[in-house]
Amino acid sequence: MKIKRNERIGALVKILTDNPNHLFNLSYFTDKFNAAKSSISEDIVIAKKLMEDLELGKIETVPGAAGGVKYIPVLTKEETKEILDEVCNKLKDPKRIIPGPFLYMADIIYNPATMRKVGNIFATQFMDKEIDYVITVETKGIPIAMMTANALNVPLIILRRDSKVTEGSTVSINYLSGSTGKIQTMSISKRAIKPGSNVIIIDDFMKAGGTAKGMVDMMREFDANVVGIGVLISTKEPEAKVVKDYIPLLVLDHIDDREQNVIIYPNEELV
Amino acid sequence: MKIKRNERIGALVKILTDNPNHLFNLSYFTDKFNAAKSSISEDIVIAKKLMEDLELGKIETVPGAAGGVKYIPVLTKEETKEILDEVCNKLKDPKRIIPGPFLYMADIIYNPATMRKVGNIFATQFMDKEIDYVITVETKGIPIAMMTANALNVPLIILRRDSKVTEGSTVSINYLSGSTGKIQTMSISKRAIKPGSNVIIIDDFMKAGGTAKGMVDMMREFDANVVGIGVLISTKEPEAKVVKDYIPLLVLDHIDDREQNVIIYPNEELV
Repeated sequence: MKIKRNERIGALVKILTDNPNHLFNLSYFTDKFNAAKSSISEDIVIAKKLMEDLELGKIETVPGAAGGVKYIPVLTKEETKEILDEVCNKLKDPKRIIPGPFLYMADIIYNPATMRKVGNIFATQFMDKEIDYVITVETKGIPIAMMTANALNVPLIILRRDSKVTEGSTVSINYLSGSTGKIQTMSISKRAIKPGSNVIIIDDFMKAGGTAKGMVDMMREFDANVVGIGVLISTKEPEAKVVKDYIPLLVLDHIDDREQNVIIYPNEELV
Repeated sequence: MKIKRNERIGALVKILTDNPNHLFNLSYFTDKFNAAKSSISEDIVIAKKLMEDLELGKIETVPGAAGGVKYIPVLTKEETKEILDEVCNKLKDPKRIIPGPFLYMADIIYNPATMRKVGNIFATQFMDKEIDYVITVETKGIPIAMMTANALNVPLIILRRDSKVTEGSTVSINYLSGSTGKIQTMSISKRAIKPGSNVIIIDDFMKAGGTAKGMVDMMREFDANVVGIGVLISTKEPEAKVVKDYIPLLVLDHIDDREQNVIIYPNEELV
């Protein structure tokens, strides 16, 4: 079956978009579309240009025998701002204030369409590192970390709050949760992480940074290098967290239970 | 800026693919591409045909003023078989057997590329229902449930093993875990689910079905209708689970610790 150019371009974009950061050899497309390599190369040039012109991410070609073509879900500053403003405006709703005070945000951080975009923001921030795994700890950070891992095309690793028999031999560490002031445990299967890997840590919320610090310590057990830490929301206070070099997407300044007011804003360095 | 047809088709497919089951009004594309409605309609016809011809999912048009166009990540039986065979073959590796015996599978169920496909399988199975939420319980089912929710474009709801202060008022229930024989608790914020909703339950593993039954019972507290239950793996024994009408993707027959043999196969009704 002969496939026309505009059909090939549609299909090429579909396949690349479905598989972010996955490198496809050109022969994958010459076989699938029953077309010459030169035609596919021209298709890629057109696809590349349209993605750039319309700011739909980036198509990158890698030369050489082991090369090919891949889609990178990179976002512009404007898109990042638009996404973060939208999330921020939802979080400002005083109906979200619950005794503590805390902010109810499960409906936002479990929303796939929103987290897909947030995952692309994190992927854009950490794209230049050679990342082997995205690390998170159960539970609320998982959807964000999953979508970040999806955008980067690397495995997700979930640290558990307790060790499970279904995981085989595990490594456990204790850490001090700054928010609760309590000693907590996290554990992970010994076989989960290859020694010497590069990882990024992704979580939903950071106050003092104790949980992120726990994850950093855990990575040391695997001789893994933490090349980045990203959180959806960090609190403004305390300003000195127990980890440094973390990227918050939003900064929570204050929840005023009495005045029913939430002060939260996007990280200015990103927008 | 004037955008050519083959660029428009590439961009249209990109935007639709990025947002499964999201209905776009035609004016979204006429504005974005600075093109006439008739041109966009022709683009859609071409995109629709190429998706069908190459089995890349489905583009559906909804007529009327509130209508538009959307991408549905539906899979053919052949694709479903291919995905399930691949997962099955990985799970058969005797190196995965851990004392219990259990199967180590974190690397598979936390792999975004694999779970994206598995999410599309579940979405294909439950697509004809009017689904409001995908429900799961922490922890290992979350990535699968997230990708299913993403494919269906509905929110994910995660039931917690204990109630958290950050969730406000919660509803909790106790249930009997058939695997462990222990009474366990699950809880969820009262505001998480709108009464009268249609939900599907997605989890990674089912033995006796106690956990799924707990989720069904929890849904009753919200007057929610469970319109489907999907699990990645169900054990062959016991054949009579405490829930009925569940769809397993894989059936685990036996883990033979001594012979280092794992017998697992795809659900024959799906492939």
